[in-house]
Amino acid sequence: MLIVMHQSATKEHIDKVVKAIESRNYQARPLPGGERVAIGVLYNKGAVDASMFSGMPGVKDVIAVTRPYKLVSRELKHDDTVIQVGNVKIGGNHFVIMAGPCAIESEDQALTIAEQVVKKGAQIFRGGAYKPRTSPYSFQGLGEEGLKIMARVREKTGMPVITEVMDLQTFDVVEAYADIVQIGTRNMQNFSLLRRAGQSKKPVFLKRGMAATIDEWLMAAEYILEGGNTNVILCERGVRTFVNHSRNTLDISAVPVVKQESHLPIIMDPSHAGGHREQVIPLSRASVAVGAHGLMVEVHHDPDNAMSDGAQSLYPDQFEHLCKQVHAIRQAMNPDMGSQKK
Amino acid sequence: MLIVMHQSATKEHIDKVVKAIESRNYQARPLPGGERVAIGVLYNKGAVDASMFSGMPGVKDVIAVTRPYKLVSRELKHDDTVIQVGNVKIGGNHFVIMAGPCAIESEDQALTIAEQVVKKGAQIFRGGAYKPRTSPYSFQGLGEEGLKIMARVREKTGMPVITEVMDLQTFDVVEAYADIVQIGTRNMQNFSLLRRAGQSKKPVFLKRGMAATIDEWLMAAEYILEGGNTNVILCERGVRTFVNHSRNTLDISAVPVVKQESHLPIIMDPSHAGGHREQVIPLSRASVAVGAHGLMVEVHHDPDNAMSDGAQSLYPDQFEHLCKQVHAIRQAMNPDMGSQKK
Amino acid sequence: MLIVMHQSATKEHIDKVVKAIESRNYQARPLPGGERVAIGVLYNKGAVDASMFSGMPGVKDVIAVTRPYKLVSRELKHDDTVIQVGNVKIGGNHFVIMAGPCAIESEDQALTIAEQVVKKGAQIFRGGAYKPRTSPYSFQGLGEEGLKIMARVREKTGMPVITEVMDLQTFDVVEAYADIVQIGTRNMQNFSLLRRAGQSKKPVFLKRGMAATIDEWLMAAEYILEGGNTNVILCERGVRTFVNHSRNTLDISAVPVVKQESHLPIIMDPSHAGGHREQVIPLSRASVAVGAHGLMVEVHHDPDNAMSDGAQSLYPDQFEHLCKQVHAIRQAMNPDMGSQKK
Amino acid sequence: MLIVMHQSATKEHIDKVVKAIESRNYQARPLPGGERVAIGVLYNKGAVDASMFSGMPGVKDVIAVTRPYKLVSRELKHDDTVIQVGNVKIGGNHFVIMAGPCAIESEDQALTIAEQVVKKGAQIFRGGAYKPRTSPYSFQGLGEEGLKIMARVREKTGMPVITEVMDLQTFDVVEAYADIVQIGTRNMQNFSLLRRAGQSKKPVFLKRGMAATIDEWLMAAEYILEGGNTNVILCERGVRTFVNHSRNTLDISAVPVVKQESHLPIIMDPSHAGGHREQVIPLSRASVAVGAHGLMVEVHHDPDNAMSDGAQSLYPDQFEHLCKQVHAIRQAMNPDMGSQKK
Repeated sequence: MLIVMHQSATKEHIDKVVKAIESRNYQARPLPGGERVAIGVLYNKGAVDASMFSGMPGVKDVIAVTRPYKLVSRELKHDDTVIQVGNVKIGGNHFVIMAGPCAIESEDQALTIAEQVVKKGAQIFRGGAYKPRTSPYSFQGLGEEGLKIMARVREKTGMPVITEVMDLQTFDVVEAYADIVQIGTRNMQNFSLLRRAGQSKKPVFLKRGMAATIDEWLMAAEYILEGGNTNVILCERGVRTFVNHSRNTLDISAVPVVKQESHLPIIMDPSHAGGHREQVIPLSRASVAVGAHGLMVEVHHDPDNAMSDGAQSLYPDQFEHLCKQVHAIRQAMNPDMGSQKK
Repeated sequence: MLIVMHQSATKEHIDKVVKAIESRNYQARPLPGGERVAIGVLYNKGAVDASMFSGMPGVKDVIAVTRPYKLVSRELKHDDTVIQVGNVKIGGNHFVIMAGPCAIESEDQALTIAEQVVKKGAQIFRGGAYKPRTSPYSFQGLGEEGLKIMARVREKTGMPVITEVMDLQTFDVVEAYADIVQIGTRNMQNFSLLRRAGQSKKPVFLKRGMAATIDEWLMAAEYILEGGNTNVILCERGVRTFVNHSRNTLDISAVPVVKQESHLPIIMDPSHAGGHREQVIPLSRASVAVGAHGLMVEVHHDPDNAMSDGAQSLYPDQFEHLCKQVHAIRQAMNPDMGSQKK
Repeated sequence: MLIVMHQSATKEHIDKVVKAIESRNYQARPLPGGERVAIGVLYNKGAVDASMFSGMPGVKDVIAVTRPYKLVSRELKHDDTVIQVGNVKIGGNHFVIMAGPCAIESEDQALTIAEQVVKKGAQIFRGGAYKPRTSPYSFQGLGEEGLKIMARVREKTGMPVITEVMDLQTFDVVEAYADIVQIGTRNMQNFSLLRRAGQSKKPVFLKRGMAATIDEWLMAAEYILEGGNTNVILCERGVRTFVNHSRNTLDISAVPVVKQESHLPIIMDPSHAGGHREQVIPLSRASVAVGAHGLMVEVHHDPDNAMSDGAQSLYPDQFEHLCKQVHAIRQAMNPDMGSQKK
Repeated sequence: MLIVMHQSATKEHIDKVVKAIESRNYQARPLPGGERVAIGVLYNKGAVDASMFSGMPGVKDVIAVTRPYKLVSRELKHDDTVIQVGNVKIGGNHFVIMAGPCAIESEDQALTIAEQVVKKGAQIFRGGAYKPRTSPYSFQGLGEEGLKIMARVREKTGMPVITEVMDLQTFDVVEAYADIVQIGTRNMQNFSLLRRAGQSKKPVFLKRGMAATIDEWLMAAEYILEGGNTNVILCERGVRTFVNHSRNTLDISAVPVVKQESHLPIIMDPSHAGGHREQVIPLSRASVAVGAHGLMVEVHHDPDNAMSDGAQSLYPDQFEHLCKQVHAIRQAMNPDMGSQKK
């Protein structure tokens, strides 16, 4: 951390800051420049809380230098984390496609879609049993009944299943049925949920908050790793910006940055990013090309009558088309294309 | 809702949309314009789900017309909601100042600050017992011990207390101690928490999500009202934008818009918006002038040694100065200044 | 356009709005719904100015229905515009790579870089002679001397050249030397410059403003087409958001949306979007995969000593690597992959 | 500037960075911390270009420490700049209200409005003769005829006039007629225009770009001061964010920050920020309370028939109401309320 003093800061101001640094067992290193003094904070382990210094008299700015995360950091663990779910590997040089409806509506619907997507290229089945909905008047999901349907999908198709958990109360039941537990964008900083996920034996799929920086996102993952669960999969699903032609803005450069900063796998969700069916295939191609470890895509056999997110759901034939394009691009990329250079 | 067709949409496309509208028991009204057809959806109660239509063939755009909320709407309930907490009234023509530390650190700290702020102008004491922190390594609050300290503050000073609830598991205990239960910005769309809050007898203080539109925020409040709790206080605390000179960007125009759309009170939190002590007083003045129903401000007697958010906490003398300025402005405003015109 | 009335709007309010619509020679169509009236504005040619109605008594909202642009619209001209520059074709099924330094620093520097990039895969040479710089104290470019150097690069390498024009005063001289005239992000709504570009015989490369919607961007292009110059190339270079790990956020979904809405070619600039060298190659791969018509990339043989934007400039070897990856992905994409479906 | 090295950076990497610093005549100060080395850049005059170092091998981050501006900085000139225009003073403890229509439509319209606003509290008359319009098909202003009308308004009412200049070609004529020359939000980084404004004898009113940081805005002002014109008035008019209930988001905390960083006056434009008439008065009250040096407000006697921006224009009676509220708040604020503390 670097503490920048005002030009008009007095020696007393500087001494007071130095003392405050030393009282926390860090080392202070004043740096006289041409016009003002800056004070380096050295030998701290992990990030120092900026707010301790930024309000002190004579202080103009406090600038973070060290990244705040540890366990998720590639500086701590150099090799890619690879997570095994059933027969599927996620991370490293593997590429995974997760597909299924936004919400589980019935056993018939779920099986119809699952049989289509497994045939056309999906390895993991997604579907919502507990649905976070903006409106209390919208369909909220089938709850445990939906989880049971997912279990039957797994039996019949062999695909592992992923579904979202919304709260502490239903964590146990979701964990019991799901192969991967998803934490949604609105819960990325639901710290109680993150702590509970840290105690789970199941891999956690952590969507980026719609206004989260990468630091905040990795710190949310840090909560889970700190709790003892190292199987975290990150998912970029678009961030909120002024742009209004897509539901969210897919932050494609998050992929190289996350891969540089962390050893965890990163998956893209082009369905929620685009929000319109026509954008999903192009965004999926971009996602594989930028180096993501996989895709999560919404597919529905009858999207005009879907109970949620119909507009962004692909028809099964479109999903097949997507899988072909994605695999063609992936094959074209020579093995090191997606890997990070140091 | 208005469904705008492509110029090239065929009669079949239009008929299919009309049928889809009617199958949901709404009325369809096709509107031939010069270049394309648009189809009005009429006689719906509440908002129609756009995604049902936006992916249909021939559809170019789906445009919402009706606002999605009902119970929070001023069109439903014309008069301002006024909430009584102890001797304090919140909403309508009343103006409330809530103040206290970011986190309760000890009984001594809490009482020292409380005695200062009650003397200088606060009516409600704020303080965090369960703290949502970006880092798992930061101080997470004293938990129930913090709540007990707040109860003693109430006893000694007479001020009602407000504190944040983070999850379902601790809702009962927070509700038992607090006079107002706060739901923080990161939990604004924690729908399980909102449903629980809807069953509470205590007023709920609902902070705006840092990337939430006003529609989403009011829909979060709608969850609480729909559950039976009509005592909701909205709190604007800044939104996330590209701007980097303040911690968040205080969305000042949210006040007139919320007051026009809803009957619920709206409070400002200049501390979290600004993030720097020097911004808190000017933002507070702006908040009262724009017509907010009150302020929530962080105050600490020794901010350089605060365990969180020291940089944005005011010294007690600054808080006194703030109260004087705020009251002077409020008195200068003639009674109808803050009220909305229809 | 749809004008939504308040629930409490009177018949007089509605009549007044109807009259206002008719006085502008549009047709008014009131639509009584369950709770309120909305009024359609029909038979308008082009967009109607919302501000004419949105302040009238009883009006709650005014909602645009028609897109505001005409000449740039694919609804007007269905086939892709293909622009010929020397031997290079831009648009349609063609893919173009433009490369070169941020700024022309000397003939030696320009030729060194040009000879590298032409060998490794560039078809058009980019370089700045007039540089828009945030600081008046930064290097502002060589001016006309820079243009002369670019002309010599064209002679020696055969590549057409593209360079930025900053104002009306230097438009003639830039136009005389350049094969493509670039309008930068900060000038996207410099309407005087757009009008002048509309009279040019040279193709215009129009970068998206860093906070421009696609509608605003296409309207800026509309200025140029309306002036008589139909050879406009759009360039997405990232938009400004809260995200801080890249210089700007590359709005990748702009590609499918622009290709659906307009017949004009769209090129990506991953260098300015990423702002860091490590992001440029992944973003380039994503750009070709999403379906862009080409890339503009900054390359420098000695970026550590570049006079501007060194951190985002590729080394020539990295550029070669980029070209290989981009072409491999492009070949893998079957011919219709990048095309839009209607 | 601080250059943060990777944990894995070698001694060679560090030496190379040190050499690069010293070759530019700065002083390098390596700071070994617990986990990595950071290198301070000392004794630079003004800001150092980050891009020179951020791409070098072993470098993780480059962090700016010094602000990039000089002449506009309060550290250079401590006292507020006060600008005299006719009998009106702008800056320091003075408060100014500028009002008038968006566009000059006719002599009759301009005089009607001017006579109303001068009576009700305006000191300076605003009006557009050259209008930057998103669409080439919209009314573009009366041009020089509009300027002549403004001159007649000045004669008849005694108010100085302010109007926007859009390009170099019309700068001389605008400068000849106007008392204050306005540079609009879309031209904030039109550096050619800024350089021309630096040579003007007239004060310049510099609107903030809709996606500009305060640093960028002050650097735009620096261009003008560097050219020799010290009479610059800053104008905050809202920035572009995800928020959709107002035309732009008024960045109210820009006022205390600009007043702390710079000696230049700062004015607010609530009309363009809000974009809806109902928001203008509350935002005006907030603007005076936060400590701005004045307001620029759009007023029209017949906004339903205004040729642009009718929805955000106040009726004359509303403007009178606004002036009364603003002055009441201003009087209530004790003299030091708006001033900055150091």
